[in-house]
Amino acid sequence: MAGIAIIGYGYWGPNLLRNFSSVPGSTVHWVVDLRTERLEQIKKQYPGIRTTSSINDVLNDPAVTAIVVATPVQYHYSLAKTALEHGKHVLIEKPMTQSSAEAEELIAISREKGLVLMVDHTFLYTGAVRKIKDLINAGEIGEIQYFDSTRINLGLFQPDINVLWDLAPHDISILFYLINDRPVSVSATGKSHTPNGLENVAYLTVNYASDHIAHFSCSWSSPVKIRKILIGGTKKMIVFDDVEPSEKVKIYDTGYTVKSDEDKRQLLIDYRAGDIHVPKLEQREALYGMAADFISAIDKGTTPVSGWKVGLEVVKVLEAAQESIKNRGREVEIKF
Amino acid sequence: MAGIAIIGYGYWGPNLLRNFSSVPGSTVHWVVDLRTERLEQIKKQYPGIRTTSSINDVLNDPAVTAIVVATPVQYHYSLAKTALEHGKHVLIEKPMTQSSAEAEELIAISREKGLVLMVDHTFLYTGAVRKIKDLINAGEIGEIQYFDSTRINLGLFQPDINVLWDLAPHDISILFYLINDRPVSVSATGKSHTPNGLENVAYLTVNYASDHIAHFSCSWSSPVKIRKILIGGTKKMIVFDDVEPSEKVKIYDTGYTVKSDEDKRQLLIDYRAGDIHVPKLEQREALYGMAADFISAIDKGTTPVSGWKVGLEVVKVLEAAQESIKNRGREVEIKF
Amino acid sequence: MAGIAIIGYGYWGPNLLRNFSSVPGSTVHWVVDLRTERLEQIKKQYPGIRTTSSINDVLNDPAVTAIVVATPVQYHYSLAKTALEHGKHVLIEKPMTQSSAEAEELIAISREKGLVLMVDHTFLYTGAVRKIKDLINAGEIGEIQYFDSTRINLGLFQPDINVLWDLAPHDISILFYLINDRPVSVSATGKSHTPNGLENVAYLTVNYASDHIAHFSCSWSSPVKIRKILIGGTKKMIVFDDVEPSEKVKIYDTGYTVKSDEDKRQLLIDYRAGDIHVPKLEQREALYGMAADFISAIDKGTTPVSGWKVGLEVVKVLEAAQESIKNRGREVEIKF
Amino acid sequence: MAGIAIIGYGYWGPNLLRNFSSVPGSTVHWVVDLRTERLEQIKKQYPGIRTTSSINDVLNDPAVTAIVVATPVQYHYSLAKTALEHGKHVLIEKPMTQSSAEAEELIAISREKGLVLMVDHTFLYTGAVRKIKDLINAGEIGEIQYFDSTRINLGLFQPDINVLWDLAPHDISILFYLINDRPVSVSATGKSHTPNGLENVAYLTVNYASDHIAHFSCSWSSPVKIRKILIGGTKKMIVFDDVEPSEKVKIYDTGYTVKSDEDKRQLLIDYRAGDIHVPKLEQREALYGMAADFISAIDKGTTPVSGWKVGLEVVKVLEAAQESIKNRGREVEIKF
Repeated sequence: MAGIAIIGYGYWGPNLLRNFSSVPGSTVHWVVDLRTERLEQIKKQYPGIRTTSSINDVLNDPAVTAIVVATPVQYHYSLAKTALEHGKHVLIEKPMTQSSAEAEELIAISREKGLVLMVDHTFLYTGAVRKIKDLINAGEIGEIQYFDSTRINLGLFQPDINVLWDLAPHDISILFYLINDRPVSVSATGKSHTPNGLENVAYLTVNYASDHIAHFSCSWSSPVKIRKILIGGTKKMIVFDDVEPSEKVKIYDTGYTVKSDEDKRQLLIDYRAGDIHVPKLEQREALYGMAADFISAIDKGTTPVSGWKVGLEVVKVLEAAQESIKNRGREVEIKF
Repeated sequence: MAGIAIIGYGYWGPNLLRNFSSVPGSTVHWVVDLRTERLEQIKKQYPGIRTTSSINDVLNDPAVTAIVVATPVQYHYSLAKTALEHGKHVLIEKPMTQSSAEAEELIAISREKGLVLMVDHTFLYTGAVRKIKDLINAGEIGEIQYFDSTRINLGLFQPDINVLWDLAPHDISILFYLINDRPVSVSATGKSHTPNGLENVAYLTVNYASDHIAHFSCSWSSPVKIRKILIGGTKKMIVFDDVEPSEKVKIYDTGYTVKSDEDKRQLLIDYRAGDIHVPKLEQREALYGMAADFISAIDKGTTPVSGWKVGLEVVKVLEAAQESIKNRGREVEIKF
Repeated sequence: MAGIAIIGYGYWGPNLLRNFSSVPGSTVHWVVDLRTERLEQIKKQYPGIRTTSSINDVLNDPAVTAIVVATPVQYHYSLAKTALEHGKHVLIEKPMTQSSAEAEELIAISREKGLVLMVDHTFLYTGAVRKIKDLINAGEIGEIQYFDSTRINLGLFQPDINVLWDLAPHDISILFYLINDRPVSVSATGKSHTPNGLENVAYLTVNYASDHIAHFSCSWSSPVKIRKILIGGTKKMIVFDDVEPSEKVKIYDTGYTVKSDEDKRQLLIDYRAGDIHVPKLEQREALYGMAADFISAIDKGTTPVSGWKVGLEVVKVLEAAQESIKNRGREVEIKF
Repeated sequence: MAGIAIIGYGYWGPNLLRNFSSVPGSTVHWVVDLRTERLEQIKKQYPGIRTTSSINDVLNDPAVTAIVVATPVQYHYSLAKTALEHGKHVLIEKPMTQSSAEAEELIAISREKGLVLMVDHTFLYTGAVRKIKDLINAGEIGEIQYFDSTRINLGLFQPDINVLWDLAPHDISILFYLINDRPVSVSATGKSHTPNGLENVAYLTVNYASDHIAHFSCSWSSPVKIRKILIGGTKKMIVFDDVEPSEKVKIYDTGYTVKSDEDKRQLLIDYRAGDIHVPKLEQREALYGMAADFISAIDKGTTPVSGWKVGLEVVKVLEAAQESIKNRGREVEIKF
């Protein structure tokens, strides 16, 4: 039985609390937040859970075996480090840290101490992404040629990170989950319309040595909410539209074949637009699956889907993207 | 009365022929194409129009006062140059030429000879773009902060130009028509999935010295057809969805206000999501308006909406984008 | 301060409990249900609320001043009657009762005893319906000519009432709220695909002496969920699409004008399709407004929007519809 | 080679002319219309086709072997009768005639004279309807339980027939094409908002002795255009949305199973919402298929898909519906 403490009770906190309260093998002992009005809300609904504004209450409680860090990104590293040093398993909200150096240090400590270190990339547990993964693994889509994500809406402007760090982790983690290939470089651009200089509109291209290319379009300034990922394979293509209530994933038997020709300037292409298939998706709440995966990693030593590996990789891409934005799109290499 | 010859009778040719046949002040005398089976189709429907595979028939006919160049892009420059040298007014399909040097040479000749030189950026004559232009001019949208265009579908792969040169001219011309500000540089990325190395997926960021940013996403490899432009202003935001049959332009009384604060790290933002307005648009065929504008420029000396200026500017952006793609996103400056 | 007891804790019960727990002036003392497993769920989340399977606990508790009847329809009448006789104010879920005679008896008792008797037609408290009401009252829509509702989806088949009694109360109550005119007769048809003979597909036309007509299409057997009401006025038309996440109400500046002509066989009609307006709607949960309206009726004697009057009228329409269905569409008159 | 004359060159005339001009085995000799300005348009585009305002020119021309009647409905019977009496094969636009007596008389003449008599129910030749027919025939949908059609838009008000006679023939012909069962009665309601008393809003229920029910909702007064048919089977359900540009037919692996139970009041239902399949449809113009079917019936004696049988059956339903509307929904029996 894992004893859980949740640090940070903001937008995502109630969802974490609800799921860790219902997942078997987990008991939530503490919620920590500096804002007492946030903690008040817990007392009504969860009278059995203790609340505090002091992290020491949690670190020193032997019943707490695992800590969930759900604070603003700037505190992820120091809180996770302290927790690991106190022998607690750690789950961090995405993005894992503000730099890959921080992430790597946390990973080193967790490995040394034999503790679970996991990052909450919730999307990897959605029925939609799991279905797409199954289709790709089964070879139905063919070789993936492009991954094109648009994640835009109005607000919520983050005070400490730009829109890429806020929204793109979802899509980058999905990309890395779906295909094994890893990129060689990125190129990114963006613009800030606020005095703090953090980009609220940003675009990111991720380059591969292979035939693959990925692109991410993120904005906090769109009047409409779009959550759409297009995935093109040599056999079929997929549209994952997360705004759709009931037809989130569509598989298009659509494509084109480049015919061999002697003269390369002459392009002979056969287009194909066929049936569309809309698979039924698993309905379970994704965050429940994530929480269960964390508990299983603690209790049974399983390797979580959303472990520190993808957490670190996502931070590396964001870090490189930030450098590229500063240089107005200049290619920045990434090493994995 | 302008005497028109159309050179090139491919995909767009029948539309040009139909509109120049119905616009007042215009008579189509010739259609030129090397493919006799294409010309056969004209004879049935337009028995009064002569067809030929030789451009000389057209150049030497004094009844021809204006030539429409609707061939593949690689022939635009030489055909337009010959036509101008023979004293004919010239309309060129978009994109104007394969390089800005070619475009500038054509412009110089046309100015020297006092001939009309125009580029068919048809979208500038749509009811949708004209309505958006009116709204921006009337100050209803406020200062434009971003312009974000997605133009993707399956095929038709062009054999001589990449997807940016094929699709982005529509959106770049719209951008330049709507706002007077001109960019300082571009950054572009893309990928080719065909042996000829021409990108079929490409992304372009256009940078401004001002608060503005523009981005273009183009693909010939999408299973779904998207034609969507988002325009964000300080007062309102616009979505122009050209795939929508009846609600193409939506104006969102949506936005955010950054409050002044002493501490810049503290971000105080007021979000606003209000009414949406869907204006009734003018229904006239855009190409008809373009044809009429060309005739008016010839007959009355008016300055066309889609003149050589925007034609050249679009080519400059594409040229810089191509260089940036080669360098995986490196910023390339543009001078206007 | 009203002391509330909720009888019946099925699908809608948790929503009632949540809202009556948060509305000012209301305290929920009891929840009654025969299924102990349903009551178990309450104890965790609302430790302060008592649960029981015996209605007598509630009737004899002087702290309980108002009872919410949220059981299957067949128990509405007897439970409401008992509650009223014990001097409790009563709120009944829609539809009010199984017959107009039952409804009228409850009304008589409540009036005699000076108790509030209200029916939960939640839709009357939605931002969408309130906005439409405002527009009609302001004369913007003109005279209403038709009201056309489609409410279909897959399941949930009710065991004791047909699809009209289950789904149409929403739309009939909206119709009666929006326009003051009352119908003279109904004609209805339907079909049962289950052994119990209760229609799972049904259609209802409501006839008026005036220019107005209303139609309701209801189904539990549709593969898609449609919740759409069209309202045609002499000036403008409205589409209320409750499945739309953000553009639920659209006002069309669309219509037609029949010109006066000497020869009536000759029809001269001017069509008009103009701008569309999508108003921002109030976001507050409708059920909260309903609960507050009940509390206000108890505390301040205000007349609730969804009082016994509309409750009775809806039952009269349903009763007449049922008779019409039995007679395959024969017109059945209604008296109000 | 069939020699065709088209009588009536209104809204649909140009489409008939275009298709009969391109179908093999057919030559259009004449177009007849009283409005000379309509005929003028033909001369330009089809210089080889003769035009006249006198039907006698056509009847007396031995080159004319088949006549297409595309006039307002009130002239269908007399024109078709005259044509048949002159030994011409006849194609009539839908609806076939103003009464079943008229239709039966035409059928009798055509059979006596061995002439083809066909009605243009174009929808039976669409890729969508043919695909649905194939699926039903293959047993994939199971027993059909309901057919629910909505066909509404703004205008065009017809001067001589109500909205049911104008719009419902499409859907009734589809219904009769898809399932072999024939109805026993109808019930219909409607309202006129014009001085001529012809209903512009109308609803029609078609009753079967079997488990099946069909409903048709028609309007000329809707601000939005809806063309949607839902078909529920015991195995799967179909949505045919003709307004959709590319996903017109969707097959839902959705349904419910009523379990056998001892106590019929207790309803045990298993719901199932599974995958959705969107088949690629044949793209050929439906009217071309209809024209080819007519020519084939003339030349090869084949039985057309849209023959006089379905033409008559549709008129019988409309006739009964009209009587039912007059009696505010009273059931009217039909005999086939």
